[in-house]
Amino acid sequence: MGLNGIFQYFVPKDRKFFPLFEQASANLIKLGEALIELVNTNDENKKQELNKLIEDLEHRGDELTHQIYLELGKNFITPFDREDIHALASAIDDIADFIHGSANRMQLYNVKIMTPPIKKLAELILQGCQDVDKAVGELKNLKNIRVITDSCVRINSMENQADYIFDNAVGELFEHEKDAITLIKYKEVLAALETATDKCEDAANVMETILVKNA
Amino acid sequence: MGLNGIFQYFVPKDRKFFPLFEQASANLIKLGEALIELVNTNDENKKQELNKLIEDLEHRGDELTHQIYLELGKNFITPFDREDIHALASAIDDIADFIHGSANRMQLYNVKIMTPPIKKLAELILQGCQDVDKAVGELKNLKNIRVITDSCVRINSMENQADYIFDNAVGELFEHEKDAITLIKYKEVLAALETATDKCEDAANVMETILVKNA
Amino acid sequence: MGLNGIFQYFVPKDRKFFPLFEQASANLIKLGEALIELVNTNDENKKQELNKLIEDLEHRGDELTHQIYLELGKNFITPFDREDIHALASAIDDIADFIHGSANRMQLYNVKIMTPPIKKLAELILQGCQDVDKAVGELKNLKNIRVITDSCVRINSMENQADYIFDNAVGELFEHEKDAITLIKYKEVLAALETATDKCEDAANVMETILVKNA
Repeated sequence: MGLNGIFQYFVPKDRKFFPLFEQASANLIKLGEALIELVNTNDENKKQELNKLIEDLEHRGDELTHQIYLELGKNFITPFDREDIHALASAIDDIADFIHGSANRMQLYNVKIMTPPIKKLAELILQGCQDVDKAVGELKNLKNIRVITDSCVRINSMENQADYIFDNAVGELFEHEKDAITLIKYKEVLAALETATDKCEDAANVMETILVKNA
Repeated sequence: MGLNGIFQYFVPKDRKFFPLFEQASANLIKLGEALIELVNTNDENKKQELNKLIEDLEHRGDELTHQIYLELGKNFITPFDREDIHALASAIDDIADFIHGSANRMQLYNVKIMTPPIKKLAELILQGCQDVDKAVGELKNLKNIRVITDSCVRINSMENQADYIFDNAVGELFEHEKDAITLIKYKEVLAALETATDKCEDAANVMETILVKNA
Repeated sequence: MGLNGIFQYFVPKDRKFFPLFEQASANLIKLGEALIELVNTNDENKKQELNKLIEDLEHRGDELTHQIYLELGKNFITPFDREDIHALASAIDDIADFIHGSANRMQLYNVKIMTPPIKKLAELILQGCQDVDKAVGELKNLKNIRVITDSCVRINSMENQADYIFDNAVGELFEHEKDAITLIKYKEVLAALETATDKCEDAANVMETILVKNA
């Protein structure tokens, strides 16, 4: 049992960190929803709005991450190990970054046709964000551990599915796409989407570590 | 107040870490200046010399980073939180790596024409390095906090500008460049340059964290 | 001398971490050997088998990394500084990831012709894995420090060689390969292989840090 274990009965656990994490994971859901809308609309004005919204949400996420790091600096005693708080905040920040990065590439590369694997990966990302949010919400009391473990299991299986879809889509591109610039565009959009799902898995791994240590 | 806060009045603060950080940030300025020269010359011999110089400076940076990590290992009490010292050293190392990576790609890909966005990004990088150096120089006494915060604000605005230039340049490439290999070359050089500015922002974020904790 | 230094005479040092690290580094050798086989066979069935094997070994590596992190969470006192244990586990995990990533790209991009630089990089990777394994095996007693330093020196020189081969191969591609899609394929396979050697160097750097602190 680490220092945190010794002290955890004497300090209020949910003052600062939990509300910040909950805001950060709620922000992820908004990002995931905006991404779904983005890959399902053909309206250029709507797309521009959604890109702006995604950028704003990513900035909001940055602020929350920064606040968590500052709290971590000010608090000698933290509800979980400092390294886990840092790793979880950073994984959530990475998910937001790669959702934003995916949307940004679609816009920069002027990707008009959203292919089925792009849409499917966007759905998996939203699902991952919802599971991260569900699990984060249970961290503060660790009473419904099952909610956390179930979310983590679903995130792992989601990430496997995303790998499979990504691998197939990239294989298809190299087999059938003869225009190199088009190939680059799609390959890089797919890679950013797939990395967002990897980052959901990173978040799940941190939460599993927290469970093992504290439950 | 953490352990460092408690102990900071009893231990000499500037024995080891500050000189190493100052050398590392001075090294960044040399790297930034060499990069500016590189993107502004057409003389092939000069280019080769500059590429060699940049490689040497990057190795020098590696050694300094390594020394900081070793000091961190040997010192139980450090002037700032260990995680911040590690993160700052690693951000400075990353800036050096991406300046070197940019120059290396220009050489490997045989990029002859340095476009305006490449030159502009090189200028922003040098500016970022100068601000990192300015802020690092104030860390040892924290007397002119304003110097640090001003540098950090300028770095953040520099990084926003770099994002804007990068996004536009890549958008232009995908719109107008019909030769895929040329597109790849420029896109990757621009990406390495832009990442160097991101790493300046990482360094600024760490220094802001240090300020909040110690000032 | 840190807390670990003070306590190291009172705690059993090799209960949990060392066997896990030894399994992880032995797993790297298997990955390196499978990679060598993969780049030297033309038999499509054999290739498929090897890709499957590499994927399984990478999963095995993931599990070992995860177990090391969990042990790190449960143990207040560790044989080396926690950050070094974490960094070493993570470097070994990265080596496995990039070996798997290289093999995966060869398969996805349907790379048929394994060029001399690809084969040479695969050999260097296996050599790096063998040296990581050799050094890891000596960590538990630190009696044959020379074995560790020799391995680290060889890994550093191996990584320099890999850089040189990579730079030349990519330079060649941009000079001679006129088909952009072929260029992308080879460039990305080479990049994944070269990154695997970088990660070997990361592992060597951590082990050198551990030596300086503990020897």
